[in-house]
This record gives sequence, structure tokens and C-alpha cells, in this order.
Amino acid sequence: MRYILKQMLNQRDPLDLVFQALSDPSRRVMVERLCRGPASVSELARPLAMSLPAVVQHLQVLEASGLVRSEKVGRVRTCQIEPGMLRNAEKWIIERRTTWERRLDRLGDYLAGQPESPNDRSE
Amino acid sequence: MRYILKQMLNQRDPLDLVFQALSDPSRRVMVERLCRGPASVSELARPLAMSLPAVVQHLQVLEASGLVRSEKVGRVRTCQIEPGMLRNAEKWIIERRTTWERRLDRLGDYLAGQPESPNDRSE
Repeated sequence: MRYILKQMLNQRDPLDLVFQALSDPSRRVMVERLCRGPASVSELARPLAMSLPAVVQHLQVLEASGLVRSEKVGRVRTCQIEPGMLRNAEKWIIERRTTWERRLDRLGDYLAGQPESPNDRSE
Repeated sequence: MRYILKQMLNQRDPLDLVFQALSDPSRRVMVERLCRGPASVSELARPLAMSLPAVVQHLQVLEASGLVRSEKVGRVRTCQIEPGMLRNAEKWIIERRTTWERRLDRLGDYLAGQPESPNDRSE
């Protein structure tokens, strides 16, 4: 796990870290929970079938990606979502989808402008 | 609970593979290219500073995630985007963002309904 974290930190593009962070189902559960409001580490751990140190390691991956930040006050570490990186990931995907849909539209326009083939005629 | 059950059954969530596939910058370049239209493996390799076998390995990750499919006709393998999985990833992120924004709205409504504190008064 520490090795994976090291590998992740060696990568450059922030999107690498965000998509990597979201590729784990436990981390997605943590992000889902934090989108509903701040939570302590033990609150984050509650629905997950894993040890607290394992949850802390996942939290470190989320913090390294910029999706989450946490602050320790007294003995309690409180975690919050950082919506900016989630928006960047959404933006990247939407741009790809838009490119793809525009291509489909152009293809549709092109096909609509083509003369009918004999097989298409209904009479 | 559903999450724990899934873990027990050792099923991998398709989103794990999609976000994992998108966490690599070369694979994102390949997805960007394929959103502009189908391409052969050597066309995909052109902007990437890596060997053809390395590109084929990345292609295998993209195909395993369901983001891309490819078909070999004669000696040429042609790759195409599969938009469904990209849509699933987008949907997951948008749902999280919506949850987060609704929470902010509720917080705003709550604060707007609170009596002003003496410090906020301008007169």
C-alpha cells in the first residue's frame, strides 16, 4: 500500500491521482460519505469492513489526490471534501463525451445528406 | 451493507476498472483520440513516446475496463470508444457533486434563517 502511494506521488498530472483515488471502492464510499458533510476518521470507517489504519491509508491517498482534506483538532481528525478536483475529473470526462457526441452528429449530418441507396427505398 | 456484501462476493465494481484505466496519462490520450473517431493501434501510438507493445498493453487495460473495444480485420486492429462506461463514470461523479451542492444549499438556507449576530450588524 505504501509502495502504491509512492508510485502515485511520482506521477505528475493531478488527474492521474484523482482517477487513481476513485478506482478503489472503499475510497469511493469515503468520498460519497464526505459529500454529505464532514466526518471523523471513525465515522468514515463505520461502513467499511477494514481496520482503522487501513482507513487512514485510504484517507492519505484521497488527501494526496486533492479530493479530501483533513484537520486534527485535539484528538479528532475531521475530513472534508474538496470539490475542485472532483470538478476537474468531471470536466475531463464531459469534454471527451462532447467530442464524441459532436462526431456522431457530424456523421449523422453526413449520412442524411447522402443520396438514398436502392435498398433504403420503401417504394 | 450492499458494499460489504459485494466485497464478500469478491465482485469487482466496473467503476474500479474505469477509473483505474483513466488514471494513466497515456491511456487518457488514447481515449481522447478515440473520441474523435476510430483508430488503428499505430495511429494510437503516434503521439505517445512508447513502444507498440506498451501501447497494446494500455489498450488491453482500456478494453478490460469497457471504455474501448477493438476488432482485427486482416492485419489491422481498429479501436473504437465505448461511450457507456465513460457515461457511468460521469454519472458517479455528477451524483457526488449534486449531493455536495444540495448540502451547501441547505446550509445556506439554514444560515439565512438564523438571526443576525451583533457583529454582523452594520448599524
